[in-house]
Amino acid sequence: MSDDNITVEALARLENCDDPRLKLITTSVITHLHAVVREVEPTLEEWGQAIDFLTQVGHWCDDTRQEFILLSDTLAVSMLVDTLAGRKPESATESTVLGPFHLPNAPELSFGANISKDRIGEPTLVTGRVLSIDGTPIANAKLDVWQASAEGLYDVQEPERFPNMNLRGIFYTNGEGQFGFCTEKPASYPVPTDGPVGAMLKALGRPAMRPAHIHFMVSAEKYQSLTTHLFVRDDPYLKSDAVQAVKDSLIVEFKQLDNPVEAEQFGIPSPYFKVNEDFRLALAV
Amino acid sequence: MSDDNITVEALARLENCDDPRLKLITTSVITHLHAVVREVEPTLEEWGQAIDFLTQVGHWCDDTRQEFILLSDTLAVSMLVDTLAGRKPESATESTVLGPFHLPNAPELSFGANISKDRIGEPTLVTGRVLSIDGTPIANAKLDVWQASAEGLYDVQEPERFPNMNLRGIFYTNGEGQFGFCTEKPASYPVPTDGPVGAMLKALGRPAMRPAHIHFMVSAEKYQSLTTHLFVRDDPYLKSDAVQAVKDSLIVEFKQLDNPVEAEQFGIPSPYFKVNEDFRLALAV
Repeated sequence: MSDDNITVEALARLENCDDPRLKLITTSVITHLHAVVREVEPTLEEWGQAIDFLTQVGHWCDDTRQEFILLSDTLAVSMLVDTLAGRKPESATESTVLGPFHLPNAPELSFGANISKDRIGEPTLVTGRVLSIDGTPIANAKLDVWQASAEGLYDVQEPERFPNMNLRGIFYTNGEGQFGFCTEKPASYPVPTDGPVGAMLKALGRPAMRPAHIHFMVSAEKYQSLTTHLFVRDDPYLKSDAVQAVKDSLIVEFKQLDNPVEAEQFGIPSPYFKVNEDFRLALAV
Repeated sequence: MSDDNITVEALARLENCDDPRLKLITTSVITHLHAVVREVEPTLEEWGQAIDFLTQVGHWCDDTRQEFILLSDTLAVSMLVDTLAGRKPESATESTVLGPFHLPNAPELSFGANISKDRIGEPTLVTGRVLSIDGTPIANAKLDVWQASAEGLYDVQEPERFPNMNLRGIFYTNGEGQFGFCTEKPASYPVPTDGPVGAMLKALGRPAMRPAHIHFMVSAEKYQSLTTHLFVRDDPYLKSDAVQAVKDSLIVEFKQLDNPVEAEQFGIPSPYFKVNEDFRLALAV
């Protein structure tokens, strides 16, 4: 069998697949995997290294660490998927990547609750509304929120310090579409470099830093769910995000305020940072 | 950032990689991964399914199971790598895939030893020589041999029955380049279908069968190592091997013989099957 025939034959073997979408995806994957092999002509040792690398990435995945998402993110595959899948009306809030640190089952918290367990970072109040693209407030929209600490670590990266969920929470909008919560100002941080993806970045001479941000998953009945970040304006890594996830419209100001009345209302000290940002959801199709 | 820019930017970030080979490989991988995403336009759910699939493949890998090799094999990536990497002088024995079942540290056995622990299958004598491509016998060449049983299972697939190595052994050629060992006639078998790759084959409507074969890794100082199979002639799956690893020159006759003298010499009953096949190694470059 010549090397051309190998690909032809591999694709021909999909003829009995009765799932046209799966067949299309597999055809594309085989075609391009084979194209990589033809371009690169890996030695058997390099093929073995690739197998070992993927195996290691798999072994690093557990309930709190998703190294394959990190791999997808750092190769900008996630961002490309997001961009192509996330085409929405222009007035809807833009999406960005999920990232490897989302956990299901964050605690449901009431309006204004503080998701920072140790309250050591700079106090920050996040408020806003969830709206439809025509500006109508959406009541009872769900916001699943998570972020790294002021030290640039997610709770799952320091489980001895935060055995339970820290800097995570689920909030629902009130009748006016409003949400609000307290937190600490997130810091920029390196993606985890202790695993195989970190070793890959190092071998590629690539910086691992991400600009500071808060993650949001916003959902409401009859609307398209939105996975996005709010990035901290003036962060030095906005242009070099290791996962290329920054969109200009998602960069927001964390405004420093000294308003003892509002601070007391939310149980945080003044001065504090405040972000006020609305999310606009497109209707489900 | 437009979707075109995402790929341009991802490739630009390799500029500080000081390993030109790694840079070339990563450039090819990113280019073609992104091409798949553009062709397929996966939904976020499909992207999540791909992440889950790869994670499962990784989780199935352990010391005796290599599901990523099985994935590479069933997508014919392994065979393409083998074909491109294995270009040797025409008179050298052809290579084929390693497969997911090789174990390091098989027992070293003496000439004529029987690698079948239960002796239940059809007795088979395998003899031959290791030669250079000009026909010179190579003394002290190493043959690492492994195969599935007469029931189509590798030892690691039934660890309760064969807690130690079964149907595996390392042999060295004598001064005339000869090797010989006894075994049971291998059977055709399905690749493991209990894991994620098996689920993939099922979803693709693809048969999982491989034609019967014995694996060999043949190596000798100053020669290129050879990883190959000997396939059983007349096997019904030679044309539909699930991993596309059959090459005509590797199909050999398992000849039925009734030779009580030879059988007694090797401690097997007569009649028995005999394969006599030489391996020709190319000089190392």
